[in-house]
Amino acid sequence: MFAATRAPSGSNRQPFRFLVLADGPAATAAKQLIGDAARRLWSAKRQRDGYTQGSAARPDSPKSRLADTMQQYVDALASVPVLILPCLNRYREPEYTEGANVYPACQNLLLAARAYGYGGVLTMFHKEVEPQLRTMLAIPDSTAMSATITLGRPAGQHGQVRRRPLSELVYQDAWGEPAPWAVDPPGTAFTAAGPPRPVAGAGAGPAAPGVAGPPSSADGPP
Amino acid sequence: MFAATRAPSGSNRQPFRFLVLADGPAATAAKQLIGDAARRLWSAKRQRDGYTQGSAARPDSPKSRLADTMQQYVDALASVPVLILPCLNRYREPEYTEGANVYPACQNLLLAARAYGYGGVLTMFHKEVEPQLRTMLAIPDSTAMSATITLGRPAGQHGQVRRRPLSELVYQDAWGEPAPWAVDPPGTAFTAAGPPRPVAGAGAGPAAPGVAGPPSSADGPP
Repeated sequence: MFAATRAPSGSNRQPFRFLVLADGPAATAAKQLIGDAARRLWSAKRQRDGYTQGSAARPDSPKSRLADTMQQYVDALASVPVLILPCLNRYREPEYTEGANVYPACQNLLLAARAYGYGGVLTMFHKEVEPQLRTMLAIPDSTAMSATITLGRPAGQHGQVRRRPLSELVYQDAWGEPAPWAVDPPGTAFTAAGPPRPVAGAGAGPAAPGVAGPPSSADGPP
Repeated sequence: MFAATRAPSGSNRQPFRFLVLADGPAATAAKQLIGDAARRLWSAKRQRDGYTQGSAARPDSPKSRLADTMQQYVDALASVPVLILPCLNRYREPEYTEGANVYPACQNLLLAARAYGYGGVLTMFHKEVEPQLRTMLAIPDSTAMSATITLGRPAGQHGQVRRRPLSELVYQDAWGEPAPWAVDPPGTAFTAAGPPRPVAGAGAGPAAPGVAGPPSSADGPP
């Protein structure tokens, strides 16, 4: 939490607040509420986005393994050791850049957790039950509920994250113009078309820090 | 840039893009445009928020030193070695949590810069001249311009960041409820009411990474 709260914010106002839910009665009830919402949302997405069709019919396909990992994640969410609700005390009307005041702090939290051997996942599952959570936890209307972060010991081991190569993400001088120096360091390229996943349960699964929301399937939509 | 692009994003979609402006003609023009905007905005704020009154009349007051540092920052902005425009390829309508897909990457960038000895500052100065920048740099309308990050060698040295104590930022079980374990580590408390600033030019100035936008004055509004 110390690392999280040392993050930058506009004019150093530090409008971020972290509501930590561990094992008190209110925490247990809030975690149950978010966990139920997550199960409903994932169940609907699993059907809608075809996580039981195509390559997902093969149980060892990336899509099928992703679906299984997500199912485990939402099933266990209510019993996660620590669930943190990062919030933002608004001083302006809501708008699309307000997250610059809270998500850097969230990333500091995820990185610190990883450094200590914990896994962290940032999701938006609270949105589904936000009015109930506000009542239950006395969160003021003037405060944005910006994320839901779960923390715990990863079931597998931390692996390399799966990302597009630098050349697709970094431009120079104009939109879409390649930056010749933006080349992935040796041994790090690990994209959908790249080398196989290092170990089952590691890497892109929800237990890995650095993954926000349901991780993408390697053969899913981009 | 590699650290930035390894950040998490919803469903691992990686919608963040980084447009790097160094010293080409378009980069120079864009930096000039943003620099001019920054000077106008700071000039107006300096007047409006009383940066020449009260304690700011004393040249060694925190408020006065902040104002001087901000002035230096905006005056030098157009000639900063590297200016990066983090952008977000939107896949949904704009909304207040979309920054969860780009600001963790920005924070990774700031932390990596700091690790290499560079100073980074995240601001919103581009907003003032966004239409001109979109035309100049061919940034699509469907892409959010999420921030302006300047990178360079800090003029001073990096100091401890100035933040509220943990007890004001971390709650447990319900809004506003103190978390008894949330205590600043020994030797780290460094708030407005805390120990004096370690060295001139370090800490809360714009050259320090971890500071987003104009840093706050120690005796300014919270």
